[in-house]
Amino acid sequence: MSRVLLTGASGFIGRHAIEGLSSRGYEVHTVTRQPLPFHAGDVQQHLADLMVERELRSVVEAVRPSHLLHCAWYAVPGKFWMAAENLDWVSASLQLLRAFCASGGRRAVMAGSCAEYDWSGEVLSEADTPLRPQTLYGHAKNSLRELVETAAPILDLSFAWGRIFWLYGPHEAPGRLVCDVTRAMVRGEVAKCSHGRQQRDFLHVVDVANALVALLDSEVLGAVNIASGEALPVRSIVERIATLIGRTDLPRFGELSASPKEPSRLVADVRRLREQVGFRPRFDLATGLADTVDWQKHATLGAHS
Amino acid sequence: MSRVLLTGASGFIGRHAIEGLSSRGYEVHTVTRQPLPFHAGDVQQHLADLMVERELRSVVEAVRPSHLLHCAWYAVPGKFWMAAENLDWVSASLQLLRAFCASGGRRAVMAGSCAEYDWSGEVLSEADTPLRPQTLYGHAKNSLRELVETAAPILDLSFAWGRIFWLYGPHEAPGRLVCDVTRAMVRGEVAKCSHGRQQRDFLHVVDVANALVALLDSEVLGAVNIASGEALPVRSIVERIATLIGRTDLPRFGELSASPKEPSRLVADVRRLREQVGFRPRFDLATGLADTVDWQKHATLGAHS
Repeated sequence: MSRVLLTGASGFIGRHAIEGLSSRGYEVHTVTRQPLPFHAGDVQQHLADLMVERELRSVVEAVRPSHLLHCAWYAVPGKFWMAAENLDWVSASLQLLRAFCASGGRRAVMAGSCAEYDWSGEVLSEADTPLRPQTLYGHAKNSLRELVETAAPILDLSFAWGRIFWLYGPHEAPGRLVCDVTRAMVRGEVAKCSHGRQQRDFLHVVDVANALVALLDSEVLGAVNIASGEALPVRSIVERIATLIGRTDLPRFGELSASPKEPSRLVADVRRLREQVGFRPRFDLATGLADTVDWQKHATLGAHS
Repeated sequence: MSRVLLTGASGFIGRHAIEGLSSRGYEVHTVTRQPLPFHAGDVQQHLADLMVERELRSVVEAVRPSHLLHCAWYAVPGKFWMAAENLDWVSASLQLLRAFCASGGRRAVMAGSCAEYDWSGEVLSEADTPLRPQTLYGHAKNSLRELVETAAPILDLSFAWGRIFWLYGPHEAPGRLVCDVTRAMVRGEVAKCSHGRQQRDFLHVVDVANALVALLDSEVLGAVNIASGEALPVRSIVERIATLIGRTDLPRFGELSASPKEPSRLVADVRRLREQVGFRPRFDLATGLADTVDWQKHATLGAHS
């Protein structure tokens, strides 16, 4: 039986990966600092701080996973782009990988980012777009990928890297776009936004997680974009949310400043994900946003009732 | 007073850096796994394994260095190019840097490599040559530099990176060119070489170490080539050594295979080192090789008498 070690299992993406892993027949082991804050079925939970190599190593040696899905990272909204913690996560990820390989692990997938790419073009493609990160986060992810990809043949490791684009969905943290505007409007408050003309490629977090699981369960090597392949103006996403909530009076475009350096359009080439991994998303934007609004209503009402 | 923590102090380059640091007025602290295998004057030695974060951290916290000169790395001749240990050294170096900054460190220099560069051109320059490593070692060094350079402003760190080219001199390890041919000929044995037509930029290890010290003692930021700025055919270096030993009958060119991928000529642009760091080497090739042959004679006679 395949045994997967999942990191970041209490995080936005990781928590949504558990079901997909189980349904594909993996014996799922999670490693988190605190017990998972939700019911997680048959999952075997291990408590450890990945920043402490001794703890990391003892979990890996106890589990002896055949597969690794590494979603954990420093992810505080707004701060993560230039946080020194990115360096710590490069260290910890390399140590995790070394321990995984030393204990017999054979297939690993790690979560990367569209922030690795040069953003001067509109279509970001694994084969053609240069890698030119502009943030420490982007550099950290790109360096980690480059190192692990180069070392993989030496380590006898099958390795793939999911480059995640924009995402949204249940359990998104405040401080991120879709969460903030949805929560505000569910509460009847105005939703301040930038001009909203920038076009981005958004995918529902359940599909992001399932794509990573599909990638893990495949034999595809190297970087694969995890995205929808379609870009929409942020403004139209906010308007759709407002319509779903029935409060089209609440969005306030232009009240937050957009960085002048923000590219006008970024969309993923998803041919590798579709054709080589064979992944199809469950949600389109209409059903995905409806699901997100439902969850936010429940969470907000729950918190205030 | 400036307090420097020197890593790799028992290694080929690090051991030669101690004197330069002391003579520039630094209080020198070394961190090595074993006591230094030579008399090291006023140096304060600390024993720790940099692969164990707890040990690394406790040395840094005890010393509270203002400066860091990081020369330690996995360096087994022949093996280091593609060894998985390169990943461990990226981790350890990032952890070392974080501990150094957390304890008040302000200026760091790390040892990089010409293996970071694209080798398709002949002249390798910090400003103009693309970075395109072909080995895990080159990727590891390049990634570490990129990460630390990007993080330096966040960490309030003044950071420079010495890109070391070819080197030779006393205490070079067997398995490396100049050591092997010198030792063989001092013993009266034939010195097997490749065709020797490839031109490389060689600098005496004392000058390499002093250049790193000068870089540390400057305010120059970023990558600086550490080299002579002149390339000579490897064959002519071996012939000079044979002449110094008086055994021009011993070199055997063409008896070892050279990789067809080896570039024919690689030379460093050393203008940054000369003009910005203000460094001038003590040895030219004639005096440097004479010094090396003298040392090898002493070491070999000492070992066999």
